[in-house]
Amino acid sequence: MTDNRSRIAPAEIERFLKHALALADEARKNILAAQRSGFSVKRKPDKSFVTSVDVAVEQRLRELIGVQFPEHGILGEELPAANADAPFQWILDPVDGTEDFAHGIPNFGVILGLHYQGTPLVGVIDHPLLDLRVHAAYGLGAYRNGERIRLTDLAPEEIDGTERITLCARANFTRHGDDGHIFDAIVRAHPNHRIYRTCLAHTLAVTGAVDAMIEYGDRIWDLAASQILVEEAGGRYRCVREWDIPDVGKVYGAVFGKPTLVDRIAERFF
Amino acid sequence: MTDNRSRIAPAEIERFLKHALALADEARKNILAAQRSGFSVKRKPDKSFVTSVDVAVEQRLRELIGVQFPEHGILGEELPAANADAPFQWILDPVDGTEDFAHGIPNFGVILGLHYQGTPLVGVIDHPLLDLRVHAAYGLGAYRNGERIRLTDLAPEEIDGTERITLCARANFTRHGDDGHIFDAIVRAHPNHRIYRTCLAHTLAVTGAVDAMIEYGDRIWDLAASQILVEEAGGRYRCVREWDIPDVGKVYGAVFGKPTLVDRIAERFF
Repeated sequence: MTDNRSRIAPAEIERFLKHALALADEARKNILAAQRSGFSVKRKPDKSFVTSVDVAVEQRLRELIGVQFPEHGILGEELPAANADAPFQWILDPVDGTEDFAHGIPNFGVILGLHYQGTPLVGVIDHPLLDLRVHAAYGLGAYRNGERIRLTDLAPEEIDGTERITLCARANFTRHGDDGHIFDAIVRAHPNHRIYRTCLAHTLAVTGAVDAMIEYGDRIWDLAASQILVEEAGGRYRCVREWDIPDVGKVYGAVFGKPTLVDRIAERFF
Repeated sequence: MTDNRSRIAPAEIERFLKHALALADEARKNILAAQRSGFSVKRKPDKSFVTSVDVAVEQRLRELIGVQFPEHGILGEELPAANADAPFQWILDPVDGTEDFAHGIPNFGVILGLHYQGTPLVGVIDHPLLDLRVHAAYGLGAYRNGERIRLTDLAPEEIDGTERITLCARANFTRHGDDGHIFDAIVRAHPNHRIYRTCLAHTLAVTGAVDAMIEYGDRIWDLAASQILVEEAGGRYRCVREWDIPDVGKVYGAVFGKPTLVDRIAERFF
């Protein structure tokens, strides 16, 4: 099977990446400014948090994409989809971990991805308050603050309980079904676990700061950057579940990070 | 019952606090310098991480305490106890979350406490890379980066599943016994949970960024600052377990944060 992405010229991919990095710069600038000047916080019907910053940043990024690539689609957490049938789709989570952002905890971040016919091409996760950014593009490698990332796999005997994992909260496993037992089995099997915010947990897995991340019941914008990031870093990304939730849309489960551990954990989902 | 601490003059407490803050400054300076220049990492017999920075910072803090208060005791994570019978005991965790520190994750921190006859008098948690510090002293209030903290309690009806908690990893509940079921019950009852590193999770509970923190199976230096911090912030601290582990020493379980939620969670331990 030919990878659709191989039909896109490398110079074109570089142009997309450059634009994604400019979007991340703009998002960071706006978030830091709002952090200083203050912002409003409210709760969505599902009781999750949204701030004036989430919406303002998404609006601003949409403007910039619209000017540069008017034919591209845009799918964001806070506003309606644009050009939903276009082959190129920009996918945005302007502030992931809004609840932490609203409470002054610096573990939030910006997630940006560009997908081509459903396959990830470019990914960026930016943490404005941590001065930390990871980026990757198809064929161009993955980088942490500009420095190339190359993940080293774990040997099977290194999976002895000291391996480091992050995962989402147990609530993610029960939000759209009854899969809490998978969470329970994972935290028993891998006792050295932490539950960080999505974007930071993903950054940690992409950079090898943890060995694997387990995401579950999340939307496409939560995962928009992670596959290309981890694959370009030499790691593995496995989608372990994909299902349609009425009135919500498609939700996903994924395991990614160092290949041997990813495969071990992914088995639990099948 | 008279609180032993009320016998200590406020000016004396201020002097201790000033010294604790100077120690935290020194620790931060040394940690940031090491972050730039590099440091060595190794694993202790229990497979936990220790770096050259942990030991160097503890040594430096011990020197400074020894000069100022030669009659005080010092209990630290990395080096043998000094003046173990003294009524005043400085308790130090020079780098809490060493594993994160070693992997470039900024969620680590310095924990410092001064206890008088076993009761906490002064507490500081400093996060060098987050530029975040909390401090408190008996009768003098609790502060976040110099700004007074006053926790507001949750109303019982606000404990509806959206309340925010942090807790330690499940491994802490099984390390010295068979209490994994308590972890399981807590993550079911409070689905909005995160597992951050000890020091950051404590800072979040002290500042009200989360509503409660559950710590379990940890040593005195992990908890050295938290009781005075949360009590001076207007919150509640409950020690829910205290036991002796051969070849390890005393370990503790504690729940702290907003009073109504703390009491609710603490019930699970009795």
